[in-house]
Amino acid sequence: MMNKSKLRVGVLGATGMVGQNYLQLLEHHPWFQVSYLAASPQSAGKKYGEAVAGRWLMEGEISERVANLTVNSIHEIEAVAEACDFVFSAFNLEKEEVKKLEAQYADYLPVISNNSAHRLTEDVPLVIPEVNPHHLEIIPVQQRNRGWNKGFIIVKPNCSVQSFLPPVSALITAGYPVQSLIVTTLQAISGAGYPGPAALDMIDNVIPFIQGEEEKSEREPLKILGSIQDDKFVDIDTLILSVHCNRVPVSHGHMATVSLKFKDKKPTLAEIQNIWQSFEGVPQVLNLPSAPLPLIVVRDEKDRPQPAKDRDAGNGMAISVGRLRECPLLDIRFVALSHNTIRGAAGGAILSAELLKAKGYL
Amino acid sequence: MMNKSKLRVGVLGATGMVGQNYLQLLEHHPWFQVSYLAASPQSAGKKYGEAVAGRWLMEGEISERVANLTVNSIHEIEAVAEACDFVFSAFNLEKEEVKKLEAQYADYLPVISNNSAHRLTEDVPLVIPEVNPHHLEIIPVQQRNRGWNKGFIIVKPNCSVQSFLPPVSALITAGYPVQSLIVTTLQAISGAGYPGPAALDMIDNVIPFIQGEEEKSEREPLKILGSIQDDKFVDIDTLILSVHCNRVPVSHGHMATVSLKFKDKKPTLAEIQNIWQSFEGVPQVLNLPSAPLPLIVVRDEKDRPQPAKDRDAGNGMAISVGRLRECPLLDIRFVALSHNTIRGAAGGAILSAELLKAKGYL
Amino acid sequence: MMNKSKLRVGVLGATGMVGQNYLQLLEHHPWFQVSYLAASPQSAGKKYGEAVAGRWLMEGEISERVANLTVNSIHEIEAVAEACDFVFSAFNLEKEEVKKLEAQYADYLPVISNNSAHRLTEDVPLVIPEVNPHHLEIIPVQQRNRGWNKGFIIVKPNCSVQSFLPPVSALITAGYPVQSLIVTTLQAISGAGYPGPAALDMIDNVIPFIQGEEEKSEREPLKILGSIQDDKFVDIDTLILSVHCNRVPVSHGHMATVSLKFKDKKPTLAEIQNIWQSFEGVPQVLNLPSAPLPLIVVRDEKDRPQPAKDRDAGNGMAISVGRLRECPLLDIRFVALSHNTIRGAAGGAILSAELLKAKGYL
Amino acid sequence: MMNKSKLRVGVLGATGMVGQNYLQLLEHHPWFQVSYLAASPQSAGKKYGEAVAGRWLMEGEISERVANLTVNSIHEIEAVAEACDFVFSAFNLEKEEVKKLEAQYADYLPVISNNSAHRLTEDVPLVIPEVNPHHLEIIPVQQRNRGWNKGFIIVKPNCSVQSFLPPVSALITAGYPVQSLIVTTLQAISGAGYPGPAALDMIDNVIPFIQGEEEKSEREPLKILGSIQDDKFVDIDTLILSVHCNRVPVSHGHMATVSLKFKDKKPTLAEIQNIWQSFEGVPQVLNLPSAPLPLIVVRDEKDRPQPAKDRDAGNGMAISVGRLRECPLLDIRFVALSHNTIRGAAGGAILSAELLKAKGYL
Repeated sequence: MMNKSKLRVGVLGATGMVGQNYLQLLEHHPWFQVSYLAASPQSAGKKYGEAVAGRWLMEGEISERVANLTVNSIHEIEAVAEACDFVFSAFNLEKEEVKKLEAQYADYLPVISNNSAHRLTEDVPLVIPEVNPHHLEIIPVQQRNRGWNKGFIIVKPNCSVQSFLPPVSALITAGYPVQSLIVTTLQAISGAGYPGPAALDMIDNVIPFIQGEEEKSEREPLKILGSIQDDKFVDIDTLILSVHCNRVPVSHGHMATVSLKFKDKKPTLAEIQNIWQSFEGVPQVLNLPSAPLPLIVVRDEKDRPQPAKDRDAGNGMAISVGRLRECPLLDIRFVALSHNTIRGAAGGAILSAELLKAKGYL
Repeated sequence: MMNKSKLRVGVLGATGMVGQNYLQLLEHHPWFQVSYLAASPQSAGKKYGEAVAGRWLMEGEISERVANLTVNSIHEIEAVAEACDFVFSAFNLEKEEVKKLEAQYADYLPVISNNSAHRLTEDVPLVIPEVNPHHLEIIPVQQRNRGWNKGFIIVKPNCSVQSFLPPVSALITAGYPVQSLIVTTLQAISGAGYPGPAALDMIDNVIPFIQGEEEKSEREPLKILGSIQDDKFVDIDTLILSVHCNRVPVSHGHMATVSLKFKDKKPTLAEIQNIWQSFEGVPQVLNLPSAPLPLIVVRDEKDRPQPAKDRDAGNGMAISVGRLRECPLLDIRFVALSHNTIRGAAGGAILSAELLKAKGYL
Repeated sequence: MMNKSKLRVGVLGATGMVGQNYLQLLEHHPWFQVSYLAASPQSAGKKYGEAVAGRWLMEGEISERVANLTVNSIHEIEAVAEACDFVFSAFNLEKEEVKKLEAQYADYLPVISNNSAHRLTEDVPLVIPEVNPHHLEIIPVQQRNRGWNKGFIIVKPNCSVQSFLPPVSALITAGYPVQSLIVTTLQAISGAGYPGPAALDMIDNVIPFIQGEEEKSEREPLKILGSIQDDKFVDIDTLILSVHCNRVPVSHGHMATVSLKFKDKKPTLAEIQNIWQSFEGVPQVLNLPSAPLPLIVVRDEKDRPQPAKDRDAGNGMAISVGRLRECPLLDIRFVALSHNTIRGAAGGAILSAELLKAKGYL
Repeated sequence: MMNKSKLRVGVLGATGMVGQNYLQLLEHHPWFQVSYLAASPQSAGKKYGEAVAGRWLMEGEISERVANLTVNSIHEIEAVAEACDFVFSAFNLEKEEVKKLEAQYADYLPVISNNSAHRLTEDVPLVIPEVNPHHLEIIPVQQRNRGWNKGFIIVKPNCSVQSFLPPVSALITAGYPVQSLIVTTLQAISGAGYPGPAALDMIDNVIPFIQGEEEKSEREPLKILGSIQDDKFVDIDTLILSVHCNRVPVSHGHMATVSLKFKDKKPTLAEIQNIWQSFEGVPQVLNLPSAPLPLIVVRDEKDRPQPAKDRDAGNGMAISVGRLRECPLLDIRFVALSHNTIRGAAGGAILSAELLKAKGYL
């Protein structure tokens, strides 16, 4: 049964791996309840349980209630407006098609997207709730630009970015602008969706390449750390990133080694550690349901963070950092890690939805 | 039966993993034949086959001839002088003890070492045969300093260094001095010896730390690229390295992502590719038995080199590089890979022995 | 702070992997609270947090309260009597030493053991709470035999046994005696404790041997399914088992393929499925805190159970079975799976303790 | 350049993983030389090197000569007759289509197939060269039945069968008929072709199911061990097999645990070991180029054979067995292992071709 005090949520692309993640994470959500599922026309008309039979990838079971929801076609958009208050978009389609579909849905209601289609659109916020919550302020502009009343689009960044950007952003916020970053990622296979890489390619192996990942990882942070000028987003222009992306045989958890150079003044290692440990973003201050506390978990052990041991910190929503030390070339270096399918995908988008609700946009 | 036309070789620390590697790689060597094995006193007096029963780690079998050699104690040094012409040191002991033992052996005959003990000793060459073969010229000085007649010590560098240094060195040799390197390694578990990391720690995991590895990886290249001045080695003083070391669940093959800044002039990517492909070191010119041709294998595929596919290039002695591209922060970036237990350990030392022989030191 | 309404529990061998598992599983236990920790003399006197620094293997953190408990030496036994009501024994020592130590502790208070030392002792119950809860009835005999007042010893079986025995036992209980079993296990690496197998041995490999495991797996079920006669345990004499044990590169979760022959009458597959689904043991009937409901999770998918997807069923306490079908040679065959470090180790022993308390033995 | 003294070979389905395996194994074959490649119409007309660009899966490189061969469409059959003397079929298509295509090719020339399509056809030999070489005698009957002159079809069995059947067959040949077998396989992921299982499904996991594998593993041995009666194959009728098939995270090498019951008399364990060690099949007697000597490698270590250490025995053509011991239920039990993509696929078929040539069928 639907709980009337909760906002009704639709999940677009509900049968894919990210869609399934949403359903699992929303299972006991205090504010939101899934009321609508959309997938490709082949799944339309089926009960969700049938639609994903044999391809449910989550560890637990599908809830009875969700398994009995009827799947709608993603192309029949009108129904969504009555059925829910906002949607999560987890489309697994061509970029141009997603761009169009998301705009069509936004004509009716707010769309919170995992897809890369609108990440660089100039009036669409690309949000990590703890890093750039103020970017939501562009929403009225976006609605005016597009002629949308209730609807709008916000997007979450690429999963690779979540592990290293929050600790960097915390330093900037604390008054230490950053000039350059050299990052090497060791990314989990679930980041590629399902089925993703073949077992034959990942056993006893690592792959030093992920299609499009380095471009996104170098470009998206510039917008996230940028500002709104003249009703559009303008990149931060004082930061340069070089990101090497690798796929490693780990199920979940993106790790990154980071070398960082400050722009002018330079905090001590002790100050950095203190900045991270005491950092509170807007989600922490507002005590949002999915906000981890602390956001940044600083590990003291010499060999942490590690994906197997640290990906679930803060229910998969925290960022773990460790091995903070001087860099012989830039200023400092460290290791950062986040859960790519929770913080880096569905969980991050749910936290954005919570922020939207707290700020009155939902 | 011993082949009289071959040099007789001893392996010190013969029962350990590196020792076993030597025995396997020397099995059909055209110039060298194993005639002497030494291990800890517990193994002394046993046939080698018994001494390693249940802990032979190589893929093939032990040769009949070697299995029947009697193991000597590493502390009974005199016997070695009659039994062989030179020794490979694969001790797995405390650094100070190795330092002393290797010097004791060098009193009798040449010692080619895998151990880190003498890597920074000021009159001991730290050699990658294709990078700094001229460093062998210090040998007479070393002998004079220590009062050794026939014996001397040379050392091979840490395995992490082999994957990224030869391609960097080839650029320097071609006239493009290098100013800085930021490297992240993804190192195989066999680099830790046996038993090395626990399976429980490496399954579905990576570990962003290897004891002492970053220090060695940042320090040893300075000596290797340095020069002999006043009868001792002096570090190159114009290069800075920052190396992040990680352990990944790969059996063999150390990979490295590299960002590089040139000192002054800067070759094009096409020039670099050409420099690598046409590089020939002294071992290639001399056509030494273990010298790979080419030394540097340039991969064109967008996702190579990979440990599982490229570690055996050149029988495990070549360095594979790929993904050469501009670096947004430094000048260029690329991925490099070498086989850590062949090129990075026993194979590299055997090539050094071949070079010593070709140059008349053995 | 200690909660006075809870029984006070000691953990012997608290710093090892099984000991750590106990501490984690007991963290929020409604009936029991850890009040006493014992480990080897080297750890004695330290705070638990210090004693396991750098070797805490569980995914979550140690609780503040437990980290501050002082570790006692396992050889100073008298203290235990005042400090707790019963102990879990997770010794990692030689069998004979454990045998003696456990008897010394039992002189003071009840000992619930994970160790194999007393598994075949003729008056010591070897208990799977859902299979042979009535075996606890020998406790007064045991106390009388040994002259113990309050103390006694009970033991949990080898972890390999838990996955396949409960479903077999459920069939026997339902009136279908079993004559023979051919089992092949695919066992997780955590079953070997820490550090356990080397990563180099488990990457891209399986090992068809586990020391002592086949003997235990074939022998212990005979006692568990046996009866008490003349104040001692007598094996079931109508069952033969053949168990092939293998180690596979899986972190947690022992799987078994089972072929089974009934003694006389033979249920249909539908009946078997029904017997399993409706099975309730004493722990389920008594609604013990750690009792999973259902005990036996029957999977319908053609490719389940799988360790990664099913080990956590019932919080790691359920047994998952699937692929029930006719056997061309014996009568039926199926696949069974349980979590080796929860149901198969600490969790199973905690459930036994709950049963003891419910039955008035604690 | 073609070597005129060698038989000219075509590979059908040349771009797939098994096709690539053929090309690699035939690279330096003393009797055969690849002269013809066929693949799907999309690849037709391309140079082979282009056709597999980005999907060459073998460890070494494609030979220059083969990379320059032009790929033909599998549907243009006439060309094959002039271009080669016989073909290997490695089609990766629907069974019925393969059945038809192979018959069409056999109208022109001999077809040696890896595909399951004709495995149970009553006049098509299903051959393991060391087990049932006499089954080739049906070829003239098959040619007469189909009206083929030069052509015919022979097939190799499913890869799972190769590991356990040769040692069983050796016992039968030595005079010890076998009555029943209970087998559990632990099969490598390359057995599923490429891409095969997703990395996400195989990391930290095993899967107790392979589509169609148990049926093939239980049925094919009956034909292989059967006889020719009235011009067709008749199954052995005194043997029952029960095979449980599992997929494990191993790249190459199918392992099997086997329990075996003899029909009447029963050799001692020492006799069995002797039978295995001294076994020579027709390929060994004829000294065929790919015949391993010995066929059956008996391992003495308590924990062997293992895929990582033993799959390459006899260049991947030998069968390794170990852990021979009494079975509490049947008579004996043991572990067997073979390389699934060499002995179990292309290598096994090449050995069959060598046998055909030696026997005058090619």
